[in-house]
Amino acid sequence: MANKLRIAVLGASGYTGADLVRLALGHPRIEIAALAAGARAGASMAEVWPHFGHYPLPSIIAADAVDWSGIDYVFGCLPHGASAALLSGIAGPRIIDLSADFRLRSAETYADWYGLPHPAPALLGHAVYGLTEYARPALPAARLVACPGCYPTAALLTLLPVARLIDVSRVTINALSGISGAGRAAKEANLFAELGESAAAYSVGRHRHMPEIEQELALAAGIPATVSFTPHLVPMARGELLTIVVEGAAAPELRAALHQRYAHEPFVHLLPEGLAPSTRMVRGSNHCVLNVFADRVPGRTILIAAIDNLVKGSSGQAIQNMNLMAGLPEPTGLEQVALFP
Amino acid sequence: MANKLRIAVLGASGYTGADLVRLALGHPRIEIAALAAGARAGASMAEVWPHFGHYPLPSIIAADAVDWSGIDYVFGCLPHGASAALLSGIAGPRIIDLSADFRLRSAETYADWYGLPHPAPALLGHAVYGLTEYARPALPAARLVACPGCYPTAALLTLLPVARLIDVSRVTINALSGISGAGRAAKEANLFAELGESAAAYSVGRHRHMPEIEQELALAAGIPATVSFTPHLVPMARGELLTIVVEGAAAPELRAALHQRYAHEPFVHLLPEGLAPSTRMVRGSNHCVLNVFADRVPGRTILIAAIDNLVKGSSGQAIQNMNLMAGLPEPTGLEQVALFP
Amino acid sequence: MANKLRIAVLGASGYTGADLVRLALGHPRIEIAALAAGARAGASMAEVWPHFGHYPLPSIIAADAVDWSGIDYVFGCLPHGASAALLSGIAGPRIIDLSADFRLRSAETYADWYGLPHPAPALLGHAVYGLTEYARPALPAARLVACPGCYPTAALLTLLPVARLIDVSRVTINALSGISGAGRAAKEANLFAELGESAAAYSVGRHRHMPEIEQELALAAGIPATVSFTPHLVPMARGELLTIVVEGAAAPELRAALHQRYAHEPFVHLLPEGLAPSTRMVRGSNHCVLNVFADRVPGRTILIAAIDNLVKGSSGQAIQNMNLMAGLPEPTGLEQVALFP
Amino acid sequence: MANKLRIAVLGASGYTGADLVRLALGHPRIEIAALAAGARAGASMAEVWPHFGHYPLPSIIAADAVDWSGIDYVFGCLPHGASAALLSGIAGPRIIDLSADFRLRSAETYADWYGLPHPAPALLGHAVYGLTEYARPALPAARLVACPGCYPTAALLTLLPVARLIDVSRVTINALSGISGAGRAAKEANLFAELGESAAAYSVGRHRHMPEIEQELALAAGIPATVSFTPHLVPMARGELLTIVVEGAAAPELRAALHQRYAHEPFVHLLPEGLAPSTRMVRGSNHCVLNVFADRVPGRTILIAAIDNLVKGSSGQAIQNMNLMAGLPEPTGLEQVALFP
Repeated sequence: MANKLRIAVLGASGYTGADLVRLALGHPRIEIAALAAGARAGASMAEVWPHFGHYPLPSIIAADAVDWSGIDYVFGCLPHGASAALLSGIAGPRIIDLSADFRLRSAETYADWYGLPHPAPALLGHAVYGLTEYARPALPAARLVACPGCYPTAALLTLLPVARLIDVSRVTINALSGISGAGRAAKEANLFAELGESAAAYSVGRHRHMPEIEQELALAAGIPATVSFTPHLVPMARGELLTIVVEGAAAPELRAALHQRYAHEPFVHLLPEGLAPSTRMVRGSNHCVLNVFADRVPGRTILIAAIDNLVKGSSGQAIQNMNLMAGLPEPTGLEQVALFP
Repeated sequence: MANKLRIAVLGASGYTGADLVRLALGHPRIEIAALAAGARAGASMAEVWPHFGHYPLPSIIAADAVDWSGIDYVFGCLPHGASAALLSGIAGPRIIDLSADFRLRSAETYADWYGLPHPAPALLGHAVYGLTEYARPALPAARLVACPGCYPTAALLTLLPVARLIDVSRVTINALSGISGAGRAAKEANLFAELGESAAAYSVGRHRHMPEIEQELALAAGIPATVSFTPHLVPMARGELLTIVVEGAAAPELRAALHQRYAHEPFVHLLPEGLAPSTRMVRGSNHCVLNVFADRVPGRTILIAAIDNLVKGSSGQAIQNMNLMAGLPEPTGLEQVALFP
Repeated sequence: MANKLRIAVLGASGYTGADLVRLALGHPRIEIAALAAGARAGASMAEVWPHFGHYPLPSIIAADAVDWSGIDYVFGCLPHGASAALLSGIAGPRIIDLSADFRLRSAETYADWYGLPHPAPALLGHAVYGLTEYARPALPAARLVACPGCYPTAALLTLLPVARLIDVSRVTINALSGISGAGRAAKEANLFAELGESAAAYSVGRHRHMPEIEQELALAAGIPATVSFTPHLVPMARGELLTIVVEGAAAPELRAALHQRYAHEPFVHLLPEGLAPSTRMVRGSNHCVLNVFADRVPGRTILIAAIDNLVKGSSGQAIQNMNLMAGLPEPTGLEQVALFP
Repeated sequence: MANKLRIAVLGASGYTGADLVRLALGHPRIEIAALAAGARAGASMAEVWPHFGHYPLPSIIAADAVDWSGIDYVFGCLPHGASAALLSGIAGPRIIDLSADFRLRSAETYADWYGLPHPAPALLGHAVYGLTEYARPALPAARLVACPGCYPTAALLTLLPVARLIDVSRVTINALSGISGAGRAAKEANLFAELGESAAAYSVGRHRHMPEIEQELALAAGIPATVSFTPHLVPMARGELLTIVVEGAAAPELRAALHQRYAHEPFVHLLPEGLAPSTRMVRGSNHCVLNVFADRVPGRTILIAAIDNLVKGSSGQAIQNMNLMAGLPEPTGLEQVALFP
């Protein structure tokens, strides 16, 4: 067998890090060489994640204790700010960052939305925006890949093929997310008893994924884009559903564009006409399912997309990117069928 | 004590009927005189609803076995079509219909959306549209009250006070509903294992609550209204959350209008600035909570409302209407505090 | 109207405290005079509990800021240890403690199980064990009532009437609890994403409710009792279900004993033969539902009980006790019908 | 690559059948040759299971339309009774039955518990009871394998290694199951709104898995076994947790026996001391996690096991059996890591 690719995961104590490890354990060409997480350094993975108890995994160490010389790929599953600060100091491994730090192409926009100066502005020009289906040409040579946010992944997979057909100044996105999207931090707001049997919007009118969606949509459209975006938390652990109202084109036209673009994609699927995408169709898998619905209001069309926020929305896409960076077949290690029920 | 009002509930084997009985049991002026449900006639309520086992309740009978002579108010919790057909034949009691049959003022619109000729078109002109906060003048003399749909209740409570401030031709509503909204029929699609950990839209682009919302919004605005409306089912039993994007007015102006309209209402509450409405705030209660958020897209504002679909969205509002029809204090029997957690 | 009873709630920022406030708001003879919670002193109740936003409630203060002179009843919803330490210093109001501090009659047993010397051993002899249905004679004159734990409430309501019929040295209890039983502290273990779609036992072989159950069961049996007790958390917010395997008596005999004991109780109900108790039958209400099942293993019988852990298992029973202490009808303010679905 | 094994799945429209297909799709040596399900014959799998929409799968046919000549293994995912009736008429393929029909070794016991004469008593003597970890010697030559029930799988994995250490006449099992265990039939009792936020026991004192557990436990112990068994449904889709109280041996002794038995098993894992098994540790995977806890009641010990009811409790174990029947490495196609969160 060919040599394995040695990876390090930074932020292995969070949900994104854990799902990356889950996928890496099933990947035939990955060797998990190092796992880091500042707050849990010294613990075994079994202590932090009991479901990994029966796998041989390195213990958790501090990020600055990683020996980078033997690492081929480093996956950054850290909070924004911390991610760029840490990753910018690493030489050697190719970097796949799952944080927000290298997604925005402008350091000023970053500072506006994230409330801090960009920690490594010199790197911004070198980062490849890793929406895999659109980044393929750039990935083989990429040294630094910025994986899209979970919401932008679903939004852009849906909107990019129709960017020149719709009015990109009038896009309204409503998003539902499972609670894992809020992270593993011990906060009262994320307790089971607080969130069970409840639904609510959050970050209304100011969620940080808006400029990211607009940036990429504008690039595809060739003109500025404006998106209203309202995310909600609903009582499920995983899954993300976007309902997007667009104007300026009719459903058949948009359907045809999506069909043409995705007919041969391994992970993005236009559903049969009339079938509503559901997060249960993609749970635990790297798939994205899409559909197009005519609104009865003339001139408006409704696009719906579902992904698993932790897989295609995060760790799965990161591995999909690594596969292309490494010259592996794109679906390697990502063949998991959705877990339903 | 004053005489009790004797009520009959038609459709007592459904979730709406059950919640009406729950509320009626705690209402100091109601006597439950008859419970009807065709499919379960002959059963005791304890057999159909074990949580009612320790209450003295009449057994379930067929609707045509009800002795109307002793009934003051009849609550129709039946499917559309069946409801009007049955209720139109009843003389004597005042009628509070929770079905869709008397909500639309035009028999033609009804036929278009519900796919059958209206069963009792002559009654349409006599029905009062029972969105309580707006129907108060008409309720004391009403013989037939059409309670709004659950989605229209939340939508109209939010939109009516601002109908002349916004562009009513450009309203986009995204709605989340608990599964009880899908009824108690034994369908594969509504099984726990199908819906747990999942979210999806349904009736996309063609939900029957659209013409109802547009009808009332247009009346308030004085011009035609056009609404895009996409409902979703999320994995919780109760609760409804509407996120409404409007244009043409800024958040402070809309906030002021809602504040002025609802400052003294017992059941409709504008939340403190920045606090997102959540269904957990109203579960099991007749309250509606609202808020207004500036979108960062100039010219758009986001309005959010939460209700319990079975209470303010259905049975609670029905009793609120009855209270006013009967000259009782409006909140009688509806003082339940939300059940959280 | 008669004067209201002025109450103080200590620990108003926890789930037990909140449910006490929910019930107190609907109680016709209670005035909420003071709400205390050290960690949130200075906050409004609306900030801590948004679902109370539309009720006039006192702001949260520190416990030592309460003016006890005007308080008739104080409800202690504090952690063990802290509760006795605080309550033992209060003169004036009658005390209803929901913590574990005054449940065990022996300071030594307390020290063994709770790992600290009892903070107020002199009071132990004065505390009434407030399992309401068995404490009625003592309640009118009680100055200090120790409300039972949630598990002991369900266990003892089931076992006390049969204590002299079964072998109390061979009782095996399996319990399921909603997550609210774990409290509102922000712990990783209690996050939605950790507990959704999951079930597990906790405190196996050493839960602190065991000596409490044994203490009261032994008193009723007249001989020592020994109980195996294993609690589990299952993914729901509220509710508690106990499945108890007993030996030495057949199902009909136990059924008869329970029937006789509870036939006229307002809150404890023996279900029709064959109907399995479910937490959905009691959610949000002060009811307890019980049933008896013959095991096919000769000599063993299965008893099952369901309560709402926050109501009959905690705050509801506390108010039930207060009603009897104050000479009010026992069900006052506790007439809530279970919320289902 | 070696030739693929061609399989047929009977009952492909149920949850067990679907999970078998999920696993088979990821199995490198399986070709899905036929899918049958009487009620849905003629439908595509995508219509019945949208999450399979992007996989090439045969359409569903009636069982009697299957061409058995090209099938190597047939998996029976049918209800009891129907399963034996159908499978007994099939010649050619080796049979892996997931129904209850061939689990009990006595046709009389079968008739007693299942209420019908055994449809194929002559085959009973030829069936291998397929609890894989104990059936290895018999599997390579087996023509008919009876896969254990989900509860017996977890119970026996836990109890068989200690069968000669404990008092097998005094075993008390309490079980929690996800709702998928109740199947996909459209029944009111299994609706989301009925089961969400609720827990209840079912089949109390008479569940059909009892004689199956006793049969195998008695064989291992060499003396008759008697088991009290109470299953519960809790609000999650997947997962099964068994809490077993045994007598006659202390925890260290039982722990040692389990450690010795399972130290080298790929799918059965004794957890570190003190760590409670949780269904989240095994969701979607073929793993079983176990642990042993000392009860504080002398002479009693508590054993806890968790599996995914649809994988190790059903379809995963069926494939594990097929692997051994076919001479493949046992974990082939079953390497899925648990999906958490």
